[in-house]
Amino acid sequence: MSSIFSKIINNEIPAYKIAENNQFIAILDIFPVAYGHTLVIPKVEIDAIFDIPDAYLQNILIFAKPIAVAIKSAYPCNRVNIITVGLEVPHAHIHLIPTMTTTDMNILRPKLNLSVSELQKVQSNILTYYKA
Amino acid sequence: MSSIFSKIINNEIPAYKIAENNQFIAILDIFPVAYGHTLVIPKVEIDAIFDIPDAYLQNILIFAKPIAVAIKSAYPCNRVNIITVGLEVPHAHIHLIPTMTTTDMNILRPKLNLSVSELQKVQSNILTYYKA
Repeated sequence: MSSIFSKIINNEIPAYKIAENNQFIAILDIFPVAYGHTLVIPKVEIDAIFDIPDAYLQNILIFAKPIAVAIKSAYPCNRVNIITVGLEVPHAHIHLIPTMTTTDMNILRPKLNLSVSELQKVQSNILTYYKA
Repeated sequence: MSSIFSKIINNEIPAYKIAENNQFIAILDIFPVAYGHTLVIPKVEIDAIFDIPDAYLQNILIFAKPIAVAIKSAYPCNRVNIITVGLEVPHAHIHLIPTMTTTDMNILRPKLNLSVSELQKVQSNILTYYKA
């Protein structure tokens, strides 16, 4: 059975898309810990981040960079940080999280509870600044 | 003034080195949250991860991969995860953290308090398995 991320990649289920190329897709985390919290997902269904092929490992942060820049413009922060957890969905991905303090990197802190219209607003805010 | 990481890169202060090439150095975190917790540091003193040049951004996970494999062999875990925080030292770096559960990714959990001889043992355990 394909992962929820593969279903999103194949357009079988909807998502708040931020960017896409032949190797990756970036979408909003629908259970964000911060406004702007985005996932970068390789288009290969492999569980653990260090098991993805080198061609993806080499490009994932390059793909993520302009997204991080756009998130920081849309949601001013000290910096956009990276975290992998990977125990939620068996399909490797990177969280991009705008942070002000070290505490903000606690992925276990309470999630924001955003409505569809709030998520659409976050998506459009980031897209305003995104330049691949 | 150079960062503590630049001083380590320049051999001005000692560290528990795991790997090094012309672009990066990997050392043990001396305040680890888990046995095997390792830092990968680019040899450019730039504060935020997404501000490092693309040539580094492209290679950092490729450099980290065999280190992550060695950590997982030395300290069996579900996977080795990645986190950037970057608010402690103004020199971009990636934490590699062996994790069993999502809770293990809380970078704020209590640190292990390891002695010099324990850190040396962790270093030698990882080096037993490390193949660049």
